[in-house]
Amino acid sequence: MEGRQGNLSTDSRIKVDSIGKEIIVVIQGERGSYSEVAATRLLGNKITLVCCERFEEVFKLTAKNDNHYCLIPLENSLSGSIHKNYDLLLRHKLKITREINLQIKHNLITAPGVSFKEIDTVFSHPIALDQCNRFFEKFPCLVKRSAYDTSGSVKRIVEGNLRDSAAIAGKQAAEYYGGDIVMTGIQDNRENFTRFVLLGRELEIRKKADKTSIAFSFGNTAGALFKCLSVFALRDIDLTKIESRPIHGRPWEYLFYLDFLGNTSEESTLKALDHLGELTDFLEVLGCYPRDASHEKKGM
Amino acid sequence: MEGRQGNLSTDSRIKVDSIGKEIIVVIQGERGSYSEVAATRLLGNKITLVCCERFEEVFKLTAKNDNHYCLIPLENSLSGSIHKNYDLLLRHKLKITREINLQIKHNLITAPGVSFKEIDTVFSHPIALDQCNRFFEKFPCLVKRSAYDTSGSVKRIVEGNLRDSAAIAGKQAAEYYGGDIVMTGIQDNRENFTRFVLLGRELEIRKKADKTSIAFSFGNTAGALFKCLSVFALRDIDLTKIESRPIHGRPWEYLFYLDFLGNTSEESTLKALDHLGELTDFLEVLGCYPRDASHEKKGM
Repeated sequence: MEGRQGNLSTDSRIKVDSIGKEIIVVIQGERGSYSEVAATRLLGNKITLVCCERFEEVFKLTAKNDNHYCLIPLENSLSGSIHKNYDLLLRHKLKITREINLQIKHNLITAPGVSFKEIDTVFSHPIALDQCNRFFEKFPCLVKRSAYDTSGSVKRIVEGNLRDSAAIAGKQAAEYYGGDIVMTGIQDNRENFTRFVLLGRELEIRKKADKTSIAFSFGNTAGALFKCLSVFALRDIDLTKIESRPIHGRPWEYLFYLDFLGNTSEESTLKALDHLGELTDFLEVLGCYPRDASHEKKGM
Repeated sequence: MEGRQGNLSTDSRIKVDSIGKEIIVVIQGERGSYSEVAATRLLGNKITLVCCERFEEVFKLTAKNDNHYCLIPLENSLSGSIHKNYDLLLRHKLKITREINLQIKHNLITAPGVSFKEIDTVFSHPIALDQCNRFFEKFPCLVKRSAYDTSGSVKRIVEGNLRDSAAIAGKQAAEYYGGDIVMTGIQDNRENFTRFVLLGRELEIRKKADKTSIAFSFGNTAGALFKCLSVFALRDIDLTKIESRPIHGRPWEYLFYLDFLGNTSEESTLKALDHLGELTDFLEVLGCYPRDASHEKKGM
């Protein structure tokens, strides 16, 4: 692995919200998805959405086109990190330019006029189905069916006018396809948030950015992780997330993804990264962006 | 969450390999699976296997029966941690009593007499399919089909005598069901190892145990993770793995799983855990067992 951050503070072009310019945003899943809600909440309605079935396509398309961004989920407060997207982020050399935490509220949605009593099958993304376990325990006669997308499941039952099926998705999917919401808020846990990030091909660092994401790895020596974290602790820099991923071809060695509060133009952050560079054999800045502090606790 | 370790050094009964006693081992998946290979390699042939379709059943069965153990995969050197099993481990209050690293070698297996040219569909567990991407790129005419288990896929194609399908699994599955291995070593990466752990209802600590697994969490304060790792670094205790998982109901707060080299009867380990207890609001010892050092690098 290679890669080391350059002089970050000079590479601070801002493109995402250039006034009047159309922004192309690639998402995984169909129109009406939680990703679309997060994209419009972050960037407004003047965006052109491109929908892909698989995350690999989302990343490839964004990496190929200079004027494309993608908005992808990186973490859910209940199910945890979406590791595939961490791996893809580094593989396609994309950078995090923004983040947004979206509260997830699942609904049971049917084709128009279908009542709850008529249904025996419920379609949705496996994670959404998992997040509604108590609902399924209450109605054991309902059969769960996995699909690749929440809103895609609504599209399927409404366009196919399925009279024995429902889908679990956000209310915006019901609105988009014209489905009926027959039950609201069916998720087990109300504290259900997904952290989405907007990715582009280049680092875009704003002055008001206060959160930085990095990836790093080091040779296996005792106390190495402790030393790496010391570069932040010694400067009172708050960590908000640490995640480990296996390194392919080096069994039981790990790559770390770390989020911390700080801007790469601040001296303390630059010094910390410089210091970290001495301790690691791979270090890459994945982004420096304004933190979405809603529903977020600080410090680790 | 509650839980704090007791006086560990006194709770050191050894049951797993009591001579002459039959051991019941619960696994996920069908006979002939990688889990079965790992179980016999760890415990010999004098075990009674109980096969379950889902990990939830494996954990429930083990938690209910005093004489049951389960052998479950916790981590793969390519795809990473199996987070569901980390969550289940804590939820069912099971303890790690042994570990074994198994090299994974995937094969293409057909019903007897079926040649490679005849097949158009390949069944296996999604992770096994993912680990053979180059094989599928080389033969784009083959359609991947997800199944809940590698060996279960072999059972299906052999028992059903499917003439147009193959399965990806270990060679022991071909032997068990009488399938033909038509291609060997089709995984992308040879450095493919799965770490399995044997779980029981109680801590069983041997004198020769040299690895300890714990789970802990702490309130959100700056530098808290650094302080927690300091209890090990200050005593030159090597970490081998750290994993974070979300805490349900407390968005963006994490529970940490940590493995380190040490026995809970050693003074330095006891002191480190005592020290860690001061810094955490939850701490639990998940097991203290002999490390399988094959294919393992030390230190973090």
